[in-house]
Amino acid sequence: MPKRGFPPAEFRARITHLQAAMAQAGESALLLTSQADIFYTTGFLTRFWESPARPWFVIVPASGEPIAVIPSIGADLMGKTWITNIRTWDAPMPGDDGLSLLAETLADTVPETGTIGLPMGLETHLRMPLADYLQLTQTLAPRIFVDATNTVQRTREIKSEAEITKIRNACAVADRTFARIHEFAAEGRTHAEVFRDFQRFLLEEGADWVSYTAGGAGQGGYGDVISPATDQRLMAGDILMLDTGAVLDGYFCDFDRNFAITHADDAAKRAYDQLYSATDHVLATLRPGHKASDVHAMFVASLTSQGATPGGGRLGHGLGITLTEWPSFTPHDQTDLRAGMVLTLEPGVEIAPGLFQVHEENIALRENGPELLSSRAAASLPILR
Amino acid sequence: MPKRGFPPAEFRARITHLQAAMAQAGESALLLTSQADIFYTTGFLTRFWESPARPWFVIVPASGEPIAVIPSIGADLMGKTWITNIRTWDAPMPGDDGLSLLAETLADTVPETGTIGLPMGLETHLRMPLADYLQLTQTLAPRIFVDATNTVQRTREIKSEAEITKIRNACAVADRTFARIHEFAAEGRTHAEVFRDFQRFLLEEGADWVSYTAGGAGQGGYGDVISPATDQRLMAGDILMLDTGAVLDGYFCDFDRNFAITHADDAAKRAYDQLYSATDHVLATLRPGHKASDVHAMFVASLTSQGATPGGGRLGHGLGITLTEWPSFTPHDQTDLRAGMVLTLEPGVEIAPGLFQVHEENIALRENGPELLSSRAAASLPILR
Repeated sequence: MPKRGFPPAEFRARITHLQAAMAQAGESALLLTSQADIFYTTGFLTRFWESPARPWFVIVPASGEPIAVIPSIGADLMGKTWITNIRTWDAPMPGDDGLSLLAETLADTVPETGTIGLPMGLETHLRMPLADYLQLTQTLAPRIFVDATNTVQRTREIKSEAEITKIRNACAVADRTFARIHEFAAEGRTHAEVFRDFQRFLLEEGADWVSYTAGGAGQGGYGDVISPATDQRLMAGDILMLDTGAVLDGYFCDFDRNFAITHADDAAKRAYDQLYSATDHVLATLRPGHKASDVHAMFVASLTSQGATPGGGRLGHGLGITLTEWPSFTPHDQTDLRAGMVLTLEPGVEIAPGLFQVHEENIALRENGPELLSSRAAASLPILR
Repeated sequence: MPKRGFPPAEFRARITHLQAAMAQAGESALLLTSQADIFYTTGFLTRFWESPARPWFVIVPASGEPIAVIPSIGADLMGKTWITNIRTWDAPMPGDDGLSLLAETLADTVPETGTIGLPMGLETHLRMPLADYLQLTQTLAPRIFVDATNTVQRTREIKSEAEITKIRNACAVADRTFARIHEFAAEGRTHAEVFRDFQRFLLEEGADWVSYTAGGAGQGGYGDVISPATDQRLMAGDILMLDTGAVLDGYFCDFDRNFAITHADDAAKRAYDQLYSATDHVLATLRPGHKASDVHAMFVASLTSQGATPGGGRLGHGLGITLTEWPSFTPHDQTDLRAGMVLTLEPGVEIAPGLFQVHEENIALRENGPELLSSRAAASLPILR
């Protein structure tokens, strides 16, 4: 079993990077409210975020260590992290659910002429009641809140070697599970049984928990990939796709695998080969200095040159503390791709109107190109007999 | 296997209730952004919310059916619900991630003199980028946004019989799993093994997925209940507590069970008896018309009369579409308890400083008092030999 957590030096390095970005953006402090941002800066790892009852806050000052302003129920666990400045209140508290404590802490940390950075942009949410935030902006005036999406995302998107190892370990859990596909997927089993067993096997293979599974199955391909499983049975000629975000020590994998049930038609096999080849093309071509939109273009070029119709939507994205992170491989995302990013390559082919096949691999982008974190999919469509 | 989903009449009734509350509050429309509120109004059920990449919107007009404004990747699944008015965009789209489509739809739905209700209060989050919301308020002026927490919470907190059945079914999954405790918890097994197997068995017993497990184990009791499991081994004299939010058809259970490993000291047995008795007291006493704070007082009175020190924090809460819902059984929460609410009774005892035992049951509040949805815990502390 790989060692859990990170040494304090990892968190100090993260904070140093954040504070450098904050200085450049002119932010006097960061206010973080999301599970991911708080885990990133503190190492505070719990499934308790599943309860929407309580807000949690971490303040990153311009210099020095972060300050946690949290419900007292979390004091014990936060006390086990590298964070030493922990302020608590008894949540939930109608009327003042930590707000005065947060305002006081921010007022102590940020001069009246200062600005408070808060992620407000694409792929961010404010995980506190909106009314409390609006009141906070009044209380803290003339301090102003500014959008710190860039500060946080440009920092978090470059993974340390320790983080890449965590994601590689999560990928290995899914690799081992997919290798056991014969134990739980076969003609006649219901989609619900297969999806449920997929989660059980992910746990058996070492996942701490399984935050995400998705999939699809149908004759020659599948329609949508976000629906829950039904009691429909796998049939001969179905293409089964299983996709997972299994979590190990706070880090996700996110990749899928396709399988044919007893046999596959030529169109499904051809789609598989086209997707495999398009992924090979990107694996060979992608380098730091490309933009997110370039990866989309690489996939589209490879697929169309093979006579395939590329699937719509994004063809991959960032990966790490959440199932999906920015950037998105769409024609519209101009994010610079840099060494140290962990990304998914997720091309899709539309075999016929509404009938898709989607492949996915996880990579770390290195100076000399992609390093696979998932074990490369089989070179031709696996048949489950 | 119980039937999945709800008939359209269920959703129509929900919308009728919401629209009545909106009329009373003077809201011309509701803007809903959270997984729970969108599932409640539409039946749109997917684990895809795990990806923070895309916002999703549902508008409930003053009369008529809801309108979904969603990423195109969700069109197929939303099309299978009772919702017919579905507007989509290709997300994620930097610069305009559904915002102009949302603004246009709201402008069509709400007159310039109207107000748009949005949950902004305790236990709510805005699940869209804050910068987009702030821009939306400008675009839609002179329409104003108001806090619709009360509108949504007073409606959602009264469960239909169909909803209560769903929660009862989720509780039954955990009941069956706890009954198999001997198969996965024993002296010498690590906490991590037990927590992992607990999830596997929940899946075996029919959970669609396991969004939450927590627990604690230690000599005579445990310290905190939100930490992930460690590789520490269960020892003779440990009290093991396992708690779960397993999900079936979109509804949660949330209750725990305590077990002694080979034997228990008298203090642990006494705490168990006190908690059991305090829960009996509330089961016998609680009626519609009480306030949330009254339940806290009932627990405290029962526990102190038995010579126990009540645990801090809240002693129960609402339950349903999320692991925890309002209200909270604290001295501060004045929410009226009404028939049709589903609630957890969760008293704790502090056996010694930092050493706790916590019990939990799930109930539906009926006109004549609580109906247990979880099978009542064993009357005395179960010993695992």
